[in-house]
Amino acid sequence: MTHPTNGLDDVVHQRVRLGILAVAHEARRVEFGFLRTALDLTTGNLSQHLTVLEKAGLVEIEKGYEGKRGRTWVHLTAAGKRALQDEISQLKRLIRQVEETRAADPAATEPS
Amino acid sequence: MTHPTNGLDDVVHQRVRLGILAVAHEARRVEFGFLRTALDLTTGNLSQHLTVLEKAGLVEIEKGYEGKRGRTWVHLTAAGKRALQDEISQLKRLIRQVEETRAADPAATEPS
Repeated sequence: MTHPTNGLDDVVHQRVRLGILAVAHEARRVEFGFLRTALDLTTGNLSQHLTVLEKAGLVEIEKGYEGKRGRTWVHLTAAGKRALQDEISQLKRLIRQVEETRAADPAATEPS
Repeated sequence: MTHPTNGLDDVVHQRVRLGILAVAHEARRVEFGFLRTALDLTTGNLSQHLTVLEKAGLVEIEKGYEGKRGRTWVHLTAAGKRALQDEISQLKRLIRQVEETRAADPAATEPS
């Protein structure tokens, strides 16, 4: 069986993008400013990672207005939902593997 | 409460480095060739990531011999063990958050 990290997709696993996918998963759609604040990002950094996710078909970006104010909304595509679930499955395998090791080897929990 | 991905450290979270730390955690020390095969990496790629981990104080690299063959061994430092545990804790928080959302919102599990 291949190591769990071999099955992770860098597009999804990267810290900021994983955050975007997770937050977008919590609602039908999320607003750009909300994401930026929740994930403590600059506008440029968030835009850059959204572009990667959009090109990979994992999110859709929608521009619109709320009153007179321009707004950018982000929502997960079906492929985005699947990609997030795959990532979560691999992470669970990884966590199980790390924790089984710890349980099997008391020395691993010794302060050093 | 800050989003779980904000608490992840890029040095540890990066896919290949997370793999190295997880495999190194399974034994007192692991041999370079074993790591390379287990994580399906090139020599150059593995060396590069080991250097990042060594500079961060998360692994120690030891060169030696097995018979006449040069061998490179890698082992986790105490800081490396802690860093891996911190990563695992944040990942568990993330997984809980994603899975609670799914449970709370049946629409999120609809095929689309």
